[in-house]
Amino acid sequence: MVDSPDGTISDLGEFGLIQRITAGAGAAKAVILGPGDDTAIVAAPDGRVVITTDLMVEGRHFRRDWSTPIDVGRKAAAASLADVAAMGAVPTALVVGLAAPGDLPVTWAVACTAGLTQEAALVGAVIVGGDVVAAAMITLAVTAIGDLQGRDPVLRSGAKVGDQVAIAGRLGWAAAGLAVLTRGFRSPKVLVDAHRFPEPPYAGGPAAAKGKATSMIDVSDGLVADARHLAIASNVVIEIDTSAWVIAEPLQAAASAYNVDPREWMLTGGDDHALLATFPAKAKLPKPFYAIGVVTAPGTGGAGVSVDGVWRAEPGGHEHYR
Amino acid sequence: MVDSPDGTISDLGEFGLIQRITAGAGAAKAVILGPGDDTAIVAAPDGRVVITTDLMVEGRHFRRDWSTPIDVGRKAAAASLADVAAMGAVPTALVVGLAAPGDLPVTWAVACTAGLTQEAALVGAVIVGGDVVAAAMITLAVTAIGDLQGRDPVLRSGAKVGDQVAIAGRLGWAAAGLAVLTRGFRSPKVLVDAHRFPEPPYAGGPAAAKGKATSMIDVSDGLVADARHLAIASNVVIEIDTSAWVIAEPLQAAASAYNVDPREWMLTGGDDHALLATFPAKAKLPKPFYAIGVVTAPGTGGAGVSVDGVWRAEPGGHEHYR
Repeated sequence: MVDSPDGTISDLGEFGLIQRITAGAGAAKAVILGPGDDTAIVAAPDGRVVITTDLMVEGRHFRRDWSTPIDVGRKAAAASLADVAAMGAVPTALVVGLAAPGDLPVTWAVACTAGLTQEAALVGAVIVGGDVVAAAMITLAVTAIGDLQGRDPVLRSGAKVGDQVAIAGRLGWAAAGLAVLTRGFRSPKVLVDAHRFPEPPYAGGPAAAKGKATSMIDVSDGLVADARHLAIASNVVIEIDTSAWVIAEPLQAAASAYNVDPREWMLTGGDDHALLATFPAKAKLPKPFYAIGVVTAPGTGGAGVSVDGVWRAEPGGHEHYR
Repeated sequence: MVDSPDGTISDLGEFGLIQRITAGAGAAKAVILGPGDDTAIVAAPDGRVVITTDLMVEGRHFRRDWSTPIDVGRKAAAASLADVAAMGAVPTALVVGLAAPGDLPVTWAVACTAGLTQEAALVGAVIVGGDVVAAAMITLAVTAIGDLQGRDPVLRSGAKVGDQVAIAGRLGWAAAGLAVLTRGFRSPKVLVDAHRFPEPPYAGGPAAAKGKATSMIDVSDGLVADARHLAIASNVVIEIDTSAWVIAEPLQAAASAYNVDPREWMLTGGDDHALLATFPAKAKLPKPFYAIGVVTAPGTGGAGVSVDGVWRAEPGGHEHYR
């Protein structure tokens, strides 16, 4: 919890809160009209706009005693911004809905918005609008739009037999961080931080599009789960080979301490927002992608995922309501 | 509550629910890529896109015993679609976040989505994406985007001294319907229906833009409150004259029964999503606008609203957290 010299959002009122949240927002090249009217207006020079929305709920995606409001804002923005990157597009703007209890300190809401703004700034995007309502629990609804800059979008459905399978960004860090926090610890700090907010490889999205990626997906549910989404959309098998994986030191340390296989975090942990993409067999992988497997034709089991030669039939990732 | 032969959303799971919700969506001219990938892609032929987001929370904006899930979907969509119309733009697509308890019947979620789809269809827009998460209470987050079709947007800030003030759509009907329901009644049905879902004059938005409207705002908080927003943005006084108002028969009947002045519902009731606009003094008002006042210069009281010559200093409308 934070101090609240400014009182609660109930004291400030809806319009006061919206004003505080959107103060300073809207100053980016793509913004034609920022907050304060019935809608914002954003440039769409490509003539097409990509759009995605994500919800984040207190107690399910974050806890106020584990994450600062800035962390929460960054994490909420990242989920939508990473989706835009996974199409090969560049985010331009966000709109944000905040449902929150009336006794929430204004400083929490303002810091959360600062987190949203900071994360968006990493890709040159800004918050252009929002809505706030009273509710029992904090819910953030973040919608991102973006520009394809004249390029074809990179879909989930384009993977071809013989393609390389590649990853940009971290795998398993957020899951390991959550395991640390769940056990009541606060270190290794890099893992805890990875749970608190991800560091998606945003630039990898457009780089993959320029690098002739045949398909791409944001890894939000877990590598195996999202590879399966891509495999089914493309009607292929994604064969992942973990034998050459270098396990990052913090993951190795936490896995040893808890006597688990760090590869399972890397295969099933969500929320790191890595990018999984496929590239033609002979393509040079654009930075920061590295190869983790190959695309093969579906056999009797149909489209799906195998890891080190073993078929993965179970969900292998995070899904709500399960 | 509805029967749930399909079970609860918890039984169906996140991906199953998203699939049910987005089934059949996405088939409109502006949709380049519908649901199922990391983002949707929507045409933005104008090179600019308008964007707005609205939240709707169970218990605050609707009650499941007063509204069907179709009503709730229609109402949630209308709030965002009316904002797009109030810029003089035409909505093209919606994305929807649904936070809901795991024991919510699938049929409720699907019917709610049908309501969203129906309302969007009134303006030729479609749902192109969504997210669902588990939460204690139903929250709908609806983001709408739209196209300006080459026209200048109609802002809140353009009202000029001497302009006509005009309204399209209903005033006070939703407030009267809520008063009826709150007192435990279910009739007059037209008023109850007006609370359950609004009937915004969507076509009036682009018509006002073509008809040289100098300013416009969606009346969601109440006529006086939203007129004040417009007055402050334009630095003018909006003088409303109710003397010529014809009070609709159902409003008159309910007001008589409850011994209230129906004009107060019309002045302060929100949620009907009428359009309030200003037009040059000699302009012919486009359908379905009718004159309700004039724009005058701010005096010692600054910008604001007067009704029948009486200054309105109080909020005079609905605001969350107050």
